[in-house]
Amino acid sequence: MNDTLHVSPLLDLAGIFVFALSGALMGARKRLDVVGMAVLASMTALGGGILRDLILNVRPAAFESLGYVLVPLLATVIVFFWHPQVERGMPTVLVFDAAGLGLFCAVGTEKALTVGFSPLHAVLLGMTTAVGGGILRDVLAGQIPSLLYDRQLYAVPALLGSAVMALLWGAGFTGWPATLAAAVLAFLLRILAMRYGWRAPLARGIPDE
Amino acid sequence: MNDTLHVSPLLDLAGIFVFALSGALMGARKRLDVVGMAVLASMTALGGGILRDLILNVRPAAFESLGYVLVPLLATVIVFFWHPQVERGMPTVLVFDAAGLGLFCAVGTEKALTVGFSPLHAVLLGMTTAVGGGILRDVLAGQIPSLLYDRQLYAVPALLGSAVMALLWGAGFTGWPATLAAAVLAFLLRILAMRYGWRAPLARGIPDE
Amino acid sequence: MNDTLHVSPLLDLAGIFVFALSGALMGARKRLDVVGMAVLASMTALGGGILRDLILNVRPAAFESLGYVLVPLLATVIVFFWHPQVERGMPTVLVFDAAGLGLFCAVGTEKALTVGFSPLHAVLLGMTTAVGGGILRDVLAGQIPSLLYDRQLYAVPALLGSAVMALLWGAGFTGWPATLAAAVLAFLLRILAMRYGWRAPLARGIPDE
Repeated sequence: MNDTLHVSPLLDLAGIFVFALSGALMGARKRLDVVGMAVLASMTALGGGILRDLILNVRPAAFESLGYVLVPLLATVIVFFWHPQVERGMPTVLVFDAAGLGLFCAVGTEKALTVGFSPLHAVLLGMTTAVGGGILRDVLAGQIPSLLYDRQLYAVPALLGSAVMALLWGAGFTGWPATLAAAVLAFLLRILAMRYGWRAPLARGIPDE
Repeated sequence: MNDTLHVSPLLDLAGIFVFALSGALMGARKRLDVVGMAVLASMTALGGGILRDLILNVRPAAFESLGYVLVPLLATVIVFFWHPQVERGMPTVLVFDAAGLGLFCAVGTEKALTVGFSPLHAVLLGMTTAVGGGILRDVLAGQIPSLLYDRQLYAVPALLGSAVMALLWGAGFTGWPATLAAAVLAFLLRILAMRYGWRAPLARGIPDE
Repeated sequence: MNDTLHVSPLLDLAGIFVFALSGALMGARKRLDVVGMAVLASMTALGGGILRDLILNVRPAAFESLGYVLVPLLATVIVFFWHPQVERGMPTVLVFDAAGLGLFCAVGTEKALTVGFSPLHAVLLGMTTAVGGGILRDVLAGQIPSLLYDRQLYAVPALLGSAVMALLWGAGFTGWPATLAAAVLAFLLRILAMRYGWRAPLARGIPDE
């Protein structure tokens, strides 16, 4: 069996928690009721992994774990009572979100490789794991997914982290240190992108506003 | 084999019909053409079950049944020709919609339990069966899903009906009377929520408008 | 094995390319960044087939092919640098789009029949293959899917092409000529619908604007 699955559960739940916070917060901002907040928190946190597992043709991890169900509800409760504080703490939450992004792309890629996907497709699926939940959150909240237009580098660090995961796997490094290395790389790239305001380009000739 | 599958087909088609009416009606209100009305009717009626079956990793029921395909088209034809009358009949339609909600959450939970999901996850999937189609309808119609913000108790009765289904199943009651009891409970809760205007709360500090 | 799979790969990639162009172009129009353009191009081109394969319970073709991944990226690069030219060439692109529509509905129907779906359900799934990507494109771009309201006949040619594919298959014609015939029929119907401005009706009593 794969060691990562034994080493990372706490990290995993932490990633889910942070993604769920961003979903619940979006709900509060949009004046959704508590049901809407819980749906948004759960879909943000679990949506990417559910998409991945549907494509891998395995039972979604979210439907085999107690924590995956309860942690988004916990995030909903926290945002329900203390959303102004969470809102103020968003700069910190974004650091944890970057950690979740790194973790999810690495774990998603690894899972796809384990199931026998080619490295290229495993990388795509790893990125999908990391960004899919946020896309679902925005679509459900009636917005164009911020990933598509905000020009922040969010998908790109996930893509590179996934690629490194696949390369390490290809080179025979299949244990949790490889997963962690890929996750940390994506995390650091995301932090650097935020810190230095790196931006994705618009199509040629479309003016920056 | 499971008795419910032999007892409930007419009820099942009735639930699908009512959900499809709400989808086709949304289409007429939004000035969609007849193709859009048919797509919306079908997705509202079948989307929740398709999502459930994708997660259960079984062939979606909608793709094994003749009635599941034809009934939404029938609802489309009716709304196409008589939408003002259907619109005026919405209070009645809502009662049938509550019945569909009850039936779908009970049947969805039962199917998940049969496939071997844990009670907690079966309950989630039962609720998804009941509310998933309406969420897809609203997303396709370009709206935030009403479930997320309208503060009506819609998901909560489905959740409680699903929970009762799982409890009865756990206690050894696996026949159609258990399914019916759970469905009726969710139905009654939904009717009471409409009758007395029970509302889901907004996050603390967000004013009721 | 099925001959079509050996005969059609170039046609298939051409269809994917054209669908991807329409996705990338939507991205440029909406001022999405290059990441958003690539996501939209990929989902438009591959989304219908992924939906189909999830329902068929087989590994999505997009995750087994190199070309399916690279061609949407190529379309993104072209639109990124030359979107005004592509925009001007849209009348031509629409002809190729009609070809993609025809091809996708025929191939999708055939794949569903091969997996053992009934003719009726195979037809539905063939149409889904052809129009699913465009629906995803519009939802992600924050619009009501144009398929639902623009009254152009887009789904109907796909439906008829799928039906002819199923009829030919039922009559024992299972090779690539049957697939091609169904694809050409849908293509021609779509071209005629554009040429003569055939329109789908609105619900009775809703005035044409």
